[in-house]
Amino acid sequence: MKSHIAVTGATGFLGRHVIKCLLDAGIDAVATARTRSATVSGCRFVSLDIANPPLDAFERLGSPEVLIHLAWDGLPNYRSHHHFEQELPRQYRFLKGLIEAGLPKLVVAGTCFEYGLQSGELSEQAPTNPCTTYGFSKDALRRQLEYIMAETSTSLTWARLFYLWGEGQAPGSLYAQISAAANRGDARFPMSGGEQLRDYLPVSQAADLMVQLALQSGGAGVLNLCSGQPVSVRSLVEHWIVEYDWNIIPTFGCYPYPDYEPMAFWGSASRLINYLIQG
Amino acid sequence: MKSHIAVTGATGFLGRHVIKCLLDAGIDAVATARTRSATVSGCRFVSLDIANPPLDAFERLGSPEVLIHLAWDGLPNYRSHHHFEQELPRQYRFLKGLIEAGLPKLVVAGTCFEYGLQSGELSEQAPTNPCTTYGFSKDALRRQLEYIMAETSTSLTWARLFYLWGEGQAPGSLYAQISAAANRGDARFPMSGGEQLRDYLPVSQAADLMVQLALQSGGAGVLNLCSGQPVSVRSLVEHWIVEYDWNIIPTFGCYPYPDYEPMAFWGSASRLINYLIQG
Repeated sequence: MKSHIAVTGATGFLGRHVIKCLLDAGIDAVATARTRSATVSGCRFVSLDIANPPLDAFERLGSPEVLIHLAWDGLPNYRSHHHFEQELPRQYRFLKGLIEAGLPKLVVAGTCFEYGLQSGELSEQAPTNPCTTYGFSKDALRRQLEYIMAETSTSLTWARLFYLWGEGQAPGSLYAQISAAANRGDARFPMSGGEQLRDYLPVSQAADLMVQLALQSGGAGVLNLCSGQPVSVRSLVEHWIVEYDWNIIPTFGCYPYPDYEPMAFWGSASRLINYLIQG
Repeated sequence: MKSHIAVTGATGFLGRHVIKCLLDAGIDAVATARTRSATVSGCRFVSLDIANPPLDAFERLGSPEVLIHLAWDGLPNYRSHHHFEQELPRQYRFLKGLIEAGLPKLVVAGTCFEYGLQSGELSEQAPTNPCTTYGFSKDALRRQLEYIMAETSTSLTWARLFYLWGEGQAPGSLYAQISAAANRGDARFPMSGGEQLRDYLPVSQAADLMVQLALQSGGAGVLNLCSGQPVSVRSLVEHWIVEYDWNIIPTFGCYPYPDYEPMAFWGSASRLINYLIQG
């Protein structure tokens, strides 16, 4: 059976990889974003602004069986009021419209920032306690969707993304910065202490998991989309240097650790693994 | 020093008692609500709709030193989408406007429903995990206010109300129902099993505590406004029957327990008591 899947935020970092996965799997994909980009090709593109969606947004997206919803404006400023003042209400209105129009299934990119300052291995059962406006707004969107979906037949998979890395990432990200520095021949790369433990996935793997979640029948509810393996940022950087044969030496301790993240946290991948194995 | 305090929701159940406490204490009070009511007298009344406040709302309220904010529409339906679709954004806009206009201190009525289905004694340190749209929306309003107040000099006291009872309560409340039944001479009063443990305050005592919180200098952050004493609903009803000399017999077990409340939960009053003693 050929599935028909639409993707918002399709021109973004993860979105481009999700589109590629869908096309590689022979799935009928519709990509949507505000403006077309050369990074997305090989599928139908629908220009759409979530802040001002047309009344027939569901039909314009080709009445998809699944929407993979990745769009979210205002990053990487995790503490902007934009997230709850503009983004939350507009995202809620957009998705509510699609649900009311008959969307059967919604897969949304959540975030580990919903957990807030909780350390160690985080399972989906942990109560959310976001400390950033970004994490709060994603958490609030999920709750609002759960409230309205209790009265509809639309199913929800809420995939809490942990950390991603890979080609096409925003210029401010660690991976983009060190690869740019290595490519321009910098001898050293100033960075944080690097001892913080995180949960990292290559973006292509995260995209593949998103597509697997979309292809399952029904909704999974809340799932961590993560490796389940804590890794220090220092080890990750050293892994990249070896893998890409970069001639650069990291200088640790140049920048402080961010205060909106715990020093050590990673996702439990048990639910994700059980769900994808057992369906 | 004569304080100047404005009160929203002044014609409501708690509001009327708060106004009375303020006037008894010789405080210069301004009462506000959409429409004037005979239940509020002896102070200045300002008609104001929170959904459409005037640009000079702060000045119209007499540029108060403290706002005691009790208004909240859409109760007692704890699960209506109204709470996050309409009430949350309009309350946020209204209060943000007052904060930007220079309001020095805000005392807001929160709710024990912010905690969600957590049993036993609840302290303010417990992470919130609301299961009703009402609890979620109050919790979200508090978080949004905290985010914007981090950048202003306005101070916040967020008083989580547990259960109240007393004259003037909504007709659907337990106290209003049994007192009406007793007054009309009913022999029996059908009710729930009555074994659930709750935290009850007489409304006059809750109003007095709200005024004490308003008169403290600075903000207390989140506080439970509660007795700290678990009491079964059965015992409370039996206490009322004795206190008011009603000739009515409760019939327990006629109605199920609500599924949006834990069977047994009450507030820890330690923070409240310490704060009011130590200032």
